[in-house]
Amino acid sequence: MNNYMAVVEYDGSGFCGFQVQPGNMRTVQGELLRVLEKVLSGKVKICYAGRTDAGVHATNQVISFKTGKELDLYRFKWSANSMLPDDIVLKEIKKTGPGFDARRSARQREYCYYVVNDSYQSVFLKKYSILITGTLRMDLMKEAAGYFTGVHDFSSFCSPSVVKRNTIRQIYDLSIEKGDRNLIIFRICANSFLYNMVRIMMGAILEAGRGERDPVSIKEALLSGEKGLGRKMVPAKGLFLNRVVY
Amino acid sequence: MNNYMAVVEYDGSGFCGFQVQPGNMRTVQGELLRVLEKVLSGKVKICYAGRTDAGVHATNQVISFKTGKELDLYRFKWSANSMLPDDIVLKEIKKTGPGFDARRSARQREYCYYVVNDSYQSVFLKKYSILITGTLRMDLMKEAAGYFTGVHDFSSFCSPSVVKRNTIRQIYDLSIEKGDRNLIIFRICANSFLYNMVRIMMGAILEAGRGERDPVSIKEALLSGEKGLGRKMVPAKGLFLNRVVY
Repeated sequence: MNNYMAVVEYDGSGFCGFQVQPGNMRTVQGELLRVLEKVLSGKVKICYAGRTDAGVHATNQVISFKTGKELDLYRFKWSANSMLPDDIVLKEIKKTGPGFDARRSARQREYCYYVVNDSYQSVFLKKYSILITGTLRMDLMKEAAGYFTGVHDFSSFCSPSVVKRNTIRQIYDLSIEKGDRNLIIFRICANSFLYNMVRIMMGAILEAGRGERDPVSIKEALLSGEKGLGRKMVPAKGLFLNRVVY
Repeated sequence: MNNYMAVVEYDGSGFCGFQVQPGNMRTVQGELLRVLEKVLSGKVKICYAGRTDAGVHATNQVISFKTGKELDLYRFKWSANSMLPDDIVLKEIKKTGPGFDARRSARQREYCYYVVNDSYQSVFLKKYSILITGTLRMDLMKEAAGYFTGVHDFSSFCSPSVVKRNTIRQIYDLSIEKGDRNLIIFRICANSFLYNMVRIMMGAILEAGRGERDPVSIKEALLSGEKGLGRKMVPAKGLFLNRVVY
């Protein structure tokens, strides 16, 4: 069997998430399977680096799949893109070693979250960011971000539905930058993320920035590991899976 | 009468251009009139800096209008934005002197054009740029751009329908930069533009970049002033009215 890895970009607005769902839900994986199985004329199993939620976008999702066929990469990419819908594109495809698995081989995942801090929402950014009209204090958000960096038990900062034994994760980096047009860009890099973890962390950071939460309470929540202390979850539309490191 | 100027952003994809058209065509001016006349409870005349074509976007279109009312600017902006459709937003509004006219007072207009030079089109940029998969030589495009800079008769580089007596325009600056994601950004600043002028100039620059036209032929076309020598017009969707200087 030949093993291939591909980099995929998608606008999450029109999808019920990445993962195939029961019923007639439109998913990224479902669309990719439909097209890959047509191009490869046979059943395919797709591994993927990040299971993005409904409404979450990706600039560089990574998938891998095996096939008995030897692919002409240029033609394969061209054929797949001509059949994929307008909101998914295959950016890159290459042959990889037999042991590569887009999920298991991933060492780091980086997500970005976009916040417009202004009195109006840009028509170009409204599908890809959230609007916060009030003051957001950068110093308080950076303090909050600092408590997340490092190795912690993220039980308080993931969906209450998570029942994994291991809720320890390592945040390598959490940066906050001001961009053009009153955009604030949050970039969070970790070995991996628990379900809803980025969106609940972002909720806490924004609460701190608005002065609604003492940043130190984040440190305390991480130490206590009590469910629900993350408190708020931000909307999916501002979130992008930006990079996967192997 | 009080005179107001406002900065407007719009996604041109869903409009038959800025200017009100006969019939049931959806236009930016039409939507603005509908909302301003409702908020001001009376007829309004809107002046505007750039008459963008169907499909052309604007990040900073400028309009002006007169009214007998003294506006509470914060409330006016909030009301107008709550009634405007999803693809238009009022970014800024302020009171201005009685002589100000968004069109006549404008000294410079800057347009940007976005080209993705890659093997695929990004799902996020496809409504806002054109894709060119072949080689585009920066040196040839910069040479072409150089011939446009300065004061010229743009008869060869505007719509054949233009019958103005004065077709002399001054290009203050025409820069070409590489951005992220294989994006090339063209920025063109002039005192004003003839109908279709930016899109025909861009057509000539891209032809030069592809090696389909000797850049020197642009200089010759400008000197001859013969209609049609501009040859090609690029699609509207990559074009943005970016800035108006007063």
